[in-house]
Amino acid sequence: MPNSLTEYRQLAKTLAVDALALVPGPNFTRALGHTFMSHERPFVLIIAAEGPSAAIVPNLELSSWDLVGFDGEVFDWRDQDGYADAFAALAQHMPMGRLAVEGQVMRVFVHHALRKAQPELEIIDAEVEISGLRMIKTDADVAALEAAIALSERALHRVLDGVRVGQTEKEIESALIQALFSEGADGMAFSPIVVAGPNSAMPHAHAGDYKVQQGDPLLFDFGGRKDGFAADITRTVFVGEPSDEARDVYNTVLAANLAGLDMTRAGVTAHDIDDVVTGVLEASPYADRIRTKTGHGLGRDVHEAPYIMRGNHQVLPAGTVYTNEPGLYDVGNFGVRIEDDVLITETGYRSLTQFPKDLIIVGR
Amino acid sequence: MPNSLTEYRQLAKTLAVDALALVPGPNFTRALGHTFMSHERPFVLIIAAEGPSAAIVPNLELSSWDLVGFDGEVFDWRDQDGYADAFAALAQHMPMGRLAVEGQVMRVFVHHALRKAQPELEIIDAEVEISGLRMIKTDADVAALEAAIALSERALHRVLDGVRVGQTEKEIESALIQALFSEGADGMAFSPIVVAGPNSAMPHAHAGDYKVQQGDPLLFDFGGRKDGFAADITRTVFVGEPSDEARDVYNTVLAANLAGLDMTRAGVTAHDIDDVVTGVLEASPYADRIRTKTGHGLGRDVHEAPYIMRGNHQVLPAGTVYTNEPGLYDVGNFGVRIEDDVLITETGYRSLTQFPKDLIIVGR
Repeated sequence: MPNSLTEYRQLAKTLAVDALALVPGPNFTRALGHTFMSHERPFVLIIAAEGPSAAIVPNLELSSWDLVGFDGEVFDWRDQDGYADAFAALAQHMPMGRLAVEGQVMRVFVHHALRKAQPELEIIDAEVEISGLRMIKTDADVAALEAAIALSERALHRVLDGVRVGQTEKEIESALIQALFSEGADGMAFSPIVVAGPNSAMPHAHAGDYKVQQGDPLLFDFGGRKDGFAADITRTVFVGEPSDEARDVYNTVLAANLAGLDMTRAGVTAHDIDDVVTGVLEASPYADRIRTKTGHGLGRDVHEAPYIMRGNHQVLPAGTVYTNEPGLYDVGNFGVRIEDDVLITETGYRSLTQFPKDLIIVGR
Repeated sequence: MPNSLTEYRQLAKTLAVDALALVPGPNFTRALGHTFMSHERPFVLIIAAEGPSAAIVPNLELSSWDLVGFDGEVFDWRDQDGYADAFAALAQHMPMGRLAVEGQVMRVFVHHALRKAQPELEIIDAEVEISGLRMIKTDADVAALEAAIALSERALHRVLDGVRVGQTEKEIESALIQALFSEGADGMAFSPIVVAGPNSAMPHAHAGDYKVQQGDPLLFDFGGRKDGFAADITRTVFVGEPSDEARDVYNTVLAANLAGLDMTRAGVTAHDIDDVVTGVLEASPYADRIRTKTGHGLGRDVHEAPYIMRGNHQVLPAGTVYTNEPGLYDVGNFGVRIEDDVLITETGYRSLTQFPKDLIIVGR
């Protein structure tokens, strides 16, 4: 068993389950030190609280799986035969009463396959606890995050130099993606958001054929991946001189971001940070434009624990990395968001994002 | 209700369920004509067999959701409040006995939220039937696929021109990705596979620091996305003169690919195609190097129905697009795979992939 599985085994004991199941995704990669794909094929690592582990592995992955050094029982299956027998053999080999799974990663077809092989199996969603093991970053994790963020910032600098009135959102997005890979990304954290004018008012809009106009806000929410870690950065710039209202909104969002940074240190709660950040927005003339919480944890996954929002009274320890991303969205008109990736330290914070936050005017 | 939902409503009737649930992914995009993200937030469209539809929508997506023109009840929820109340309100509004879901797309946390709000709800995995609605491509679908494939091929041509001994797999991968976006991709179908030498023997390996050597096979399995559709192309080229064995393996894989194409026409079964393709490999001296089935459907998703394998006696109608991707994998030594994207027609087939399949030698 790779040493890295011992903490998952310990968690299974803490959760009072017989075993814990991981499927391809960030926890799987962290546990095994290798990245696998799943697509339509069930691929499940079962870490028992006591005794050896086991795995259900698609036959065509066996040669890659050998590199893992896994010493538990492996039940492989071929596409031609289907996977029901592999799940039945697993159930026979390792009968379980309670199984903890990653509810945000495992899909229903695997859940159904597990239950079909063992109809009485109780499947518990332990997403919070399992992914919670990733919350406190190691020095190596932080270094990978910094590399992902640094290359993403270099890419954004390059793209901003080239923005011109009349370009479409898609053209700018394409330039951004090319710059990310040319700066050394080995993947993208997510499909980037590059939106201008009224589209900036939709938090999750995607680049389209809209042509950037004079005075438009131009919002970039994006990140490269490096060595398994994801950057997540938002900057809103303006194409030519912004309106007075846009300036004021920008400064309000920036003040919220800074207020959140200012009170960040080990021991504050997620609630506390969101309360301060959102409080600044609420106290402004734009309170009705609030659409989102302050942010989320960042690491191997672009959205992970802790979620920085009111009501989450989780205490944040040193080593947590979170996104501080207040925004104001006036539907049909425009939106502004500013997002930093922030490492919490014992005495305060270190912003892993270094990109300037002064209001930037491009395209001239 | 957008007109596009009527076929899902009809399917719900056919499946004898009260409703059908879609979550963000290819079916969701197809049904609504807009692309949404889900991440950690439940986002569910419920299409009732009878009566109006309903949806659970994260509050921050409401402005994007308005563009859909959905006329059913919407239960939105904010991060700060959690989603349990929205699911409870949905259950109250639309009590259901049986619900069909996309088992390969919906994740366990949504399954659990549905069941928590309605403990007696029977959740049926109708992945095959729901995604099956995408199997026969429209002319517009084929045009989008052709655009995705054409730009992917242009990218590969550019990259092959630049391959040199001593480059790492990662460097070549980075060049490929940049070329994809510069040729007009709006996304990637999947994280590309760019592997050389012994790594080519692992069907799903990923680019690493291995330096390409003289005589190595260099395998590219990749695809760009365009307008919601994915290309999926594999070519194995050689860096300098291949060994006689490598040449023979290449010709064997190519013969299998061609035999599959040759017998492709509307009315054959998935089993029939795989039987012919795999039969060629089995009749060769390399039968012990077979690791995979012939291929899979291709469209909005890079792996979708129909799965081209023995035992799948599904009859393939005109308009189906599938990947013909035989390969031979000698673990520790090398692998070869050749993959075309093939449109089935009444009288035969049209290969949407146009990239040459003669053995190509690069790096000189």
